Amino acid sequence: MPYISSANIACGFHAGDPVWIGRTVSLAEEAGVAIGAHPGFPDLMGFGRREIQVAPEELKSYIIYQVGALQAFTGKKRLQHVKPHGALYNMGAVNGEIARAVAEAVREVDTDLILVGLAGSAWIEAGLNAGLKVASEVFADRALNPDGTLVPRSQPGAVIRDTEKVVAASLKMVTEGKAIAINGQEIPVRADTICLHGDTEGAVELARNLREGMEAAGVKVLPMGVSL
Amino acid sequence: MPYISSANIACGFHAGDPVWIGRTVSLAEEAGVAIGAHPGFPDLMGFGRREIQVAPEELKSYIIYQVGALQAFTGKKRLQHVKPHGALYNMGAVNGEIARAVAEAVREVDTDLILVGLAGSAWIEAGLNAGLKVASEVFADRALNPDGTLVPRSQPGAVIRDTEKVVAASLKMVTEGKAIAINGQEIPVRADTICLHGDTEGAVELARNLREGMEAAGVKVLPMGVSL
Amino acid sequence: MPYISSANIACGFHAGDPVWIGRTVSLAEEAGVAIGAHPGFPDLMGFGRREIQVAPEELKSYIIYQVGALQAFTGKKRLQHVKPHGALYNMGAVNGEIARAVAEAVREVDTDLILVGLAGSAWIEAGLNAGLKVASEVFADRALNPDGTLVPRSQPGAVIRDTEKVVAASLKMVTEGKAIAINGQEIPVRADTICLHGDTEGAVELARNLREGMEAAGVKVLPMGVSL
Amino acid sequence: MPYISSANIACGFHAGDPVWIGRTVSLAEEAGVAIGAHPGFPDLMGFGRREIQVAPEELKSYIIYQVGALQAFTGKKRLQHVKPHGALYNMGAVNGEIARAVAEAVREVDTDLILVGLAGSAWIEAGLNAGLKVASEVFADRALNPDGTLVPRSQPGAVIRDTEKVVAASLKMVTEGKAIAINGQEIPVRADTICLHGDTEGAVELARNLREGMEAAGVKVLPMGVSL
Repeated sequence: MPYISSANIACGFHAGDPVWIGRTVSLAEEAGVAIGAHPGFPDLMGFGRREIQVAPEELKSYIIYQVGALQAFTGKKRLQHVKPHGALYNMGAVNGEIARAVAEAVREVDTDLILVGLAGSAWIEAGLNAGLKVASEVFADRALNPDGTLVPRSQPGAVIRDTEKVVAASLKMVTEGKAIAINGQEIPVRADTICLHGDTEGAVELARNLREGMEAAGVKVLPMGVSL
Repeated sequence: MPYISSANIACGFHAGDPVWIGRTVSLAEEAGVAIGAHPGFPDLMGFGRREIQVAPEELKSYIIYQVGALQAFTGKKRLQHVKPHGALYNMGAVNGEIARAVAEAVREVDTDLILVGLAGSAWIEAGLNAGLKVASEVFADRALNPDGTLVPRSQPGAVIRDTEKVVAASLKMVTEGKAIAINGQEIPVRADTICLHGDTEGAVELARNLREGMEAAGVKVLPMGVSL
Repeated sequence: MPYISSANIACGFHAGDPVWIGRTVSLAEEAGVAIGAHPGFPDLMGFGRREIQVAPEELKSYIIYQVGALQAFTGKKRLQHVKPHGALYNMGAVNGEIARAVAEAVREVDTDLILVGLAGSAWIEAGLNAGLKVASEVFADRALNPDGTLVPRSQPGAVIRDTEKVVAASLKMVTEGKAIAINGQEIPVRADTICLHGDTEGAVELARNLREGMEAAGVKVLPMGVSL
Repeated sequence: MPYISSANIACGFHAGDPVWIGRTVSLAEEAGVAIGAHPGFPDLMGFGRREIQVAPEELKSYIIYQVGALQAFTGKKRLQHVKPHGALYNMGAVNGEIARAVAEAVREVDTDLILVGLAGSAWIEAGLNAGLKVASEVFADRALNPDGTLVPRSQPGAVIRDTEKVVAASLKMVTEGKAIAINGQEIPVRADTICLHGDTEGAVELARNLREGMEAAGVKVLPMGVSL
């Protein structure tokens, strides 16, 4: 909590339950971290990481339900953002119908919510079309293809494990709006927010290094609701 | 929907799911019926009708989660009331600690919500102590003991099946604040709202008769948020 | 129950729960109806009718679990068959990897189990490859394409609603091994078992007519374990 | 696994899922550890540690379902034993109706299964009445009241944290059939099996010490199915 500015909190469909949501929201609020809903597919067994062929209308209800449930735990009954989880995040990045269903659901709950999605993906367009503020997300430790998509984890070099390189690449994305793709080419990237997974090995250390690296370079790390 | 003024909608823990919640909320809103959350224990297999020894802090989170989820489906993001379901309703009627946990959870979501509980039970006291508006509920087709509690379904005469008697008894409770207990004694009863179960045989017919009986007697049937 | 010879019983993942499984198994056993497991994806909200991208190893465990659970309710701790449900049934009909994972799981529970799958589909090959007995299934009320696949429900004429035609077509498949495709062409079909959905409108009437039609034509309707 | 002789494996109702059941069963079988089902209440949110007022007939189905599901994962389709979990274990220890429902369910799945229950409790009687073999269970690190019941965790001295004392007390129970109650009194105890919780801090170390202590004293640690 001390190293991040915004938290994505699972809403009970792929992980989490009311008791843990309550505890996590309290922890975030005490630390001054802004809170976002992290809704996913109803798939506890698969941690929301498996594609489910859900109809757009069904998906809308799943998002409204999860975002509403999480929001009720916050002190001011307002969330900062919504970031879809796992397979839903990946599907919506390339499927405009899915991204639109989620964006409309988010707008239906609260028009002031920020929709967080992969930089350059269908999420961004869907969020803007729905009249929402959007945050373009990048991943600190993942290599990029020349077209800006993530190199799949199955390929060598997909995950960057050297912390110094991760910090340097993150700084370049944030301050210059540029990244070096896996083939060495410099490409444009919009980085409003940097994603860190809480369950990665060494996550806390990485978060600390990133935060300190950012601040040493004069970059203020702020909740999206403030910076956007 | 045409015969009722307020609807209790299950929130997914003992029945219902996001798709059905969305459809039911729409149906109610189109009919001008006020909407309430009907939270219960996490017990799909038992329809929330079995006691679970949940700690007050756990129970609070369960209520916040369910009420928040349902609320997000409504057009104005506001519910009228919260009415606990099944075993939770029965436990809280006689257990002040349970009733208090629920009342505090309701207040935490929205201080304007009305808490609906059995007339004369611990729910009413807990709601008032939490600073909430409360609605005293009676059951149109259930016999009462001289102390105002419901005659258990296991006893003969517990359920009144004659529609005319049900309408007459309901009118008496609503207009005179009195009921005839199973032993013939006249007892005081506060009846802000009359409960009908949607899954009772002949429920629609009973609802129609009650509504017509009330209106014929000059009683206006209004959502609690208006009448209280 | 009096009109069918084999029952497919849901195992709790997409529908059913232990109490209903117990009751349904008893009902079938009392009627002399042979019992099969009807496993599906873990998807109560979608009734198992949505594709989920489950890995073969995960799928194997889901099948073992469900088949084992159902089997324990039967009087002799033996089932007659396993028939996959919904989206799983449709996916395995055209995806050999999925069909193989299920067939291997079935064999792992009991090598004497019959695997039921769409006639002419990947299920049949997977079952045979796993060393299982297989039953080729046809649908009494569904039109066929010239290649033997089902006409999708979205197309006109997909569902045959005239009971006499359903009975005649079923008899032709069972006794001659032939069907008339939607374009009028006669095609070969293997029909070891005819599927009826319990939740179709008029299901009981259709079952009765089929049974009577079969018997009038001298066809004995027997459990697969006897006829195969 | 190298230090234990029998494993209690959760069956998916309060913890576990098919994938983890499959992995855990494999792990146990590879280590030569005998396998038991560890069924509990349907309560993922509460880890099966909360009382649920389930009717005996419902409970029977829950047990049949879980035991059958787990059994299907074993190599020989046979389990060694069944040990109820959490709140169910505690309720059945003092409630003969609950213990009987479980014992009858176990017998219905397989008459050769051993029922494991708290030494001297209603479980033992219920198991014997159902014609099952029973194993009297003791807890290595818990203090006992003079009547042989466990000192509740809420009381000081309830949990013994000194490993040497735990080993000594266990040896005394196993070899002499005696224990020293919390008031210093020597009491008779039947100890067919010693319970270790996998999620206790230092569990592996405790298991190793117990195993080594037993063997050093000439006690063979064997699966119940062999020793009983």
